[in-house]
Amino acid sequence: MATRAPKTKRGTARRETLLRSAERVIGEKGFAAASIADITRDCGAALGTFYIYFTSKEDVFRELVGMMGSLTRRMMTEAVQDAPNRLEAERLGLRAFLAFVAERPSLYRIVEEARFVDPDAYRAYFTGFASAYATHLEKAVAKGDIRPGDAEVRAWALMGMAKSLGDRFVMAAEKPDLDRVTDEAFAMIRDGLAPGGAA
Amino acid sequence: MATRAPKTKRGTARRETLLRSAERVIGEKGFAAASIADITRDCGAALGTFYIYFTSKEDVFRELVGMMGSLTRRMMTEAVQDAPNRLEAERLGLRAFLAFVAERPSLYRIVEEARFVDPDAYRAYFTGFASAYATHLEKAVAKGDIRPGDAEVRAWALMGMAKSLGDRFVMAAEKPDLDRVTDEAFAMIRDGLAPGGAA
Repeated sequence: MATRAPKTKRGTARRETLLRSAERVIGEKGFAAASIADITRDCGAALGTFYIYFTSKEDVFRELVGMMGSLTRRMMTEAVQDAPNRLEAERLGLRAFLAFVAERPSLYRIVEEARFVDPDAYRAYFTGFASAYATHLEKAVAKGDIRPGDAEVRAWALMGMAKSLGDRFVMAAEKPDLDRVTDEAFAMIRDGLAPGGAA
Repeated sequence: MATRAPKTKRGTARRETLLRSAERVIGEKGFAAASIADITRDCGAALGTFYIYFTSKEDVFRELVGMMGSLTRRMMTEAVQDAPNRLEAERLGLRAFLAFVAERPSLYRIVEEARFVDPDAYRAYFTGFASAYATHLEKAVAKGDIRPGDAEVRAWALMGMAKSLGDRFVMAAEKPDLDRVTDEAFAMIRDGLAPGGAA
């Protein structure tokens, strides 16, 4: 089921164009309703062109989920690379994730639909992400950057938080205010809900 | 599109049986792959019986999402009713939610699939839940039970955390350890990640 890699620069560009159309069309209509004809129509390509680069709708879908994986990771790594410590990395990472949802809402929806359309790709996406995240959290505990605690539970909890905030305050918001949402959520991540302390 | 309410005790029981079969079949196969024939076969009913109580597969699906809404709320209310304060209510509520996912995994999957199958029902489910949750958090701030902060952002963040933990440590776990996961996640909810303080 390997996707068909193009050999020329022009081929790479056409494949990329098809991928962006697939992202747009599947993100809007959902996997079941979106047809390959919808995808090629979206970018003005002939139906047959699709099959030069992909074997099926399932194939392009899996590629989009994988693409979301690499894009999210790269974007998060860049966003947090200058953070002086893990707490600041958490804040920057959350802000960057919300900005990504705002920029590529279709890709975000596609990953969520993968739970039903391609459960293996869905699991691979989140398990891979969580595992890298947990490693960062473990290192931060070892350095005394954050309070001790189970890194895997924390990683999944924090990912779920970010996803839910993306749903409500980006996807479903008329005017997303990413800074405000990030600040409010980060305050809870940093200090918790218990009164007293550094409030 | 109102579902057809039965008039007799026997009718109520049959409708309930069909609902449980729909929950099982749609939860396992997904909405698109599950047929009404699969549902009636699951409980040994005649195909026509389905249409005495429901108008369509969409109809029974919407009812299941609504049912998940009422069940979750009732279960959460019961779980936290004896909590001496909001922090303890957070711990008990999270534990109860994870136990519910363990008990009714199909219902949980159905609500997640509603994002694609019935977006209005999906939105209604989470918006309703979040709104009640935020009210509790606001009251807790007013009482000094928890640190001040935006109740809506917190409600969505905490819901997302619970969902993600349910995905990873209940649905995808071989041996779910609800107490351990609850304790670890609750420690972060209560105290945050910042070092020092009440660790």
